[in-house]
Amino acid sequence: MAAADAARAVAGLEELRRLTGDADGAQRVAWTDTWVEARRWLRDELDGIDGVTVETDEAGNTWASAPGDHERFVIVGGHLDSVPNGGWLDGALNVLGGLEVLRALAHEERPVGLKLVDWADEEGARFGRSLLGSSASAGTLDPESVRGLRDRGGTALPDALASHGVTLDRMGESGARLRGAAAYLELHIEQGPVLERLDLPLGVVLGTFGVQRHAVRFTGAHAHAGATPMDLRRDAFLAAARSAQAWRDDAARREDVRATVGVVEVVPGIVTAFNGTCEVSLDQRALDADVLEDMLSTAQADSVRIAAEEGCEVAWERIWAIEPIPFDAELIELADESIRQVTETSHRLPSGPLHDAAEMARVMPTVMLFVKSLGGVSHTKEEDTPAADLELSVRALDELTRRTLAWAGDRDG
Amino acid sequence: MAAADAARAVAGLEELRRLTGDADGAQRVAWTDTWVEARRWLRDELDGIDGVTVETDEAGNTWASAPGDHERFVIVGGHLDSVPNGGWLDGALNVLGGLEVLRALAHEERPVGLKLVDWADEEGARFGRSLLGSSASAGTLDPESVRGLRDRGGTALPDALASHGVTLDRMGESGARLRGAAAYLELHIEQGPVLERLDLPLGVVLGTFGVQRHAVRFTGAHAHAGATPMDLRRDAFLAAARSAQAWRDDAARREDVRATVGVVEVVPGIVTAFNGTCEVSLDQRALDADVLEDMLSTAQADSVRIAAEEGCEVAWERIWAIEPIPFDAELIELADESIRQVTETSHRLPSGPLHDAAEMARVMPTVMLFVKSLGGVSHTKEEDTPAADLELSVRALDELTRRTLAWAGDRDG
Repeated sequence: MAAADAARAVAGLEELRRLTGDADGAQRVAWTDTWVEARRWLRDELDGIDGVTVETDEAGNTWASAPGDHERFVIVGGHLDSVPNGGWLDGALNVLGGLEVLRALAHEERPVGLKLVDWADEEGARFGRSLLGSSASAGTLDPESVRGLRDRGGTALPDALASHGVTLDRMGESGARLRGAAAYLELHIEQGPVLERLDLPLGVVLGTFGVQRHAVRFTGAHAHAGATPMDLRRDAFLAAARSAQAWRDDAARREDVRATVGVVEVVPGIVTAFNGTCEVSLDQRALDADVLEDMLSTAQADSVRIAAEEGCEVAWERIWAIEPIPFDAELIELADESIRQVTETSHRLPSGPLHDAAEMARVMPTVMLFVKSLGGVSHTKEEDTPAADLELSVRALDELTRRTLAWAGDRDG
Repeated sequence: MAAADAARAVAGLEELRRLTGDADGAQRVAWTDTWVEARRWLRDELDGIDGVTVETDEAGNTWASAPGDHERFVIVGGHLDSVPNGGWLDGALNVLGGLEVLRALAHEERPVGLKLVDWADEEGARFGRSLLGSSASAGTLDPESVRGLRDRGGTALPDALASHGVTLDRMGESGARLRGAAAYLELHIEQGPVLERLDLPLGVVLGTFGVQRHAVRFTGAHAHAGATPMDLRRDAFLAAARSAQAWRDDAARREDVRATVGVVEVVPGIVTAFNGTCEVSLDQRALDADVLEDMLSTAQADSVRIAAEEGCEVAWERIWAIEPIPFDAELIELADESIRQVTETSHRLPSGPLHDAAEMARVMPTVMLFVKSLGGVSHTKEEDTPAADLELSVRALDELTRRTLAWAGDRDG
């Protein structure tokens, strides 16, 4: 039994970067020629593994199945597509790590089957809908919600899909591929600063955050900067500024949650007046639904109290929400063991960004591994991870896959 | 000795509103036909006062001189020009109040002369330079600083001036009109909420605020709202928000000063990231130069401390500054007496906005009277003051003018 060739995975990533990147970064945007070229490279690699069968499903996802006749199987997944001017590792590490695991395990005795999937259009970079292929497979994609999407050039999503052999209204049929799936595994770069700050190469992902995203509008009354004494002001920006601090301070007191003000818009926004309205976005994230609910109600209460103190009013409008998606407790333990097999210490952390694994976690036991990101940056050509850590991550994925195959076999029995 | 006819001043204001306003408010923008029409109306009124001589100086200011031969004189001033969609009282009350004072005093025995001036282009509404006529007269207008100004239609300021008989490079010659001036008096609506909140009709203006106006730029590093834990963030918006609160709180602790954040610009300003840069404007005002200097240094120190606490940097850039212009201590006493002659209580307050009186205060003893503004609003058709209070204000101006004429006569002696 030979371990996966982790160095070969890193060499493959570098080759893919040469083939499908330029001076501005990775250019493997889904439903473009460069993406097709990346998938052709993957196809050639898979064809080089004796007996592996490769198929594309109704959603455009590519499936590679290790030889053998198993009713049940474990899936290792990732995505070759990138954002424009993206990083060399985001999504591609998952696929190329999985490729080497598949290559190593293809002809070993296995209690259940093993499949590698390259999801179509995780990023949603061209049409604005992320997790497209994996959500179709999980049964959460409503065709009506994306039928009208167009890219910047005016091309409609259904037309772009059709030119790649995908029919929007049949994408959901890809879900049949999941019949018999026992578990879903995914390796990904962290895209955040946590592991690097802890000086650790690898971590187990506990799940993806639930998100509550609101537009919060403070309303006072603008007036002249010189004419209006401080105690007679109804300054909407100050109400928002104080609320933003309260929201941040509340999040900082809790364990591993997020609260972020991103959009800040003031009216009139001129030097000679204080502001009569200020609208901000508040994005709150937590892995526990009750905690998220408590964060939201606390933030709303804080804003109402502060707005009243500033002589203002406040109104909340929900922009978007998604429930937390926790990963499987037993697979989390297997992932922890696998990491400690290849390095001294493991660490458990939530995922800030969403991943295809979030869609799979709706329908089967799922877990992810994170490898550290230098500087916490992603979606840019500066995205990077030391080669030694990339190799460790592929070895950990190999360990995790072997453990999960055994675990799935035990469950069958 | 007959007092000024205050009711006639109010009637004149209403007539002027009919002639030069519309459903959106006053339209007496300087260097436009409607402004010329308003001045023609004033000219007709002045021509109706026996012996008064009317002249226009090199800066386009209109001077009306009461009959008699005096080397020295007191000036009452105002401006007929308005912003577009402006209020009926801003500037016009000053002129029409002064008109009735002139009418009443024209043929009375006076120790010194009396002149009424209608300044040209106080608002700067068309070309963006306020106090144009009065600054030319005071000698503080640099022709080079305005030569390139154009209105929205592309017309250059010098061309607009020329079509009204004014030569930019000769505007400074208007300063000769001030030779022999003993004092400058101006009545104006408050344009703020102070007198209304105190339930008082009238106040004495102590001077115009000094202003320190800065752009303050906070720099951290933006990152993903989900991926970055709270304690690893360098959130420039939060540094700015906390600083804005500190600046406000400092101003609120002091007596009758202002601190205003108006512009707020964040980058990247999207829902899924906290902000790496936040630039705000800070406009600070005080009547005492030392207080203003202390406010600025305190605000800078607060911003440096808070930025460091948030892992950010901060840079200050001055946009504009003007020194405080205190009015004349003796004239302030006369104004106080005059107000108490017509109503029970007087109140002393600084002026937030600038006025032509600020230019005159550079070259001669000056004071202003304020009459309350309903809701503190100005520069809009909603601008209003009850007729009874307007009449009181004209009576107070009449009292003040008489006292100032006597005071100037005593000084001569």
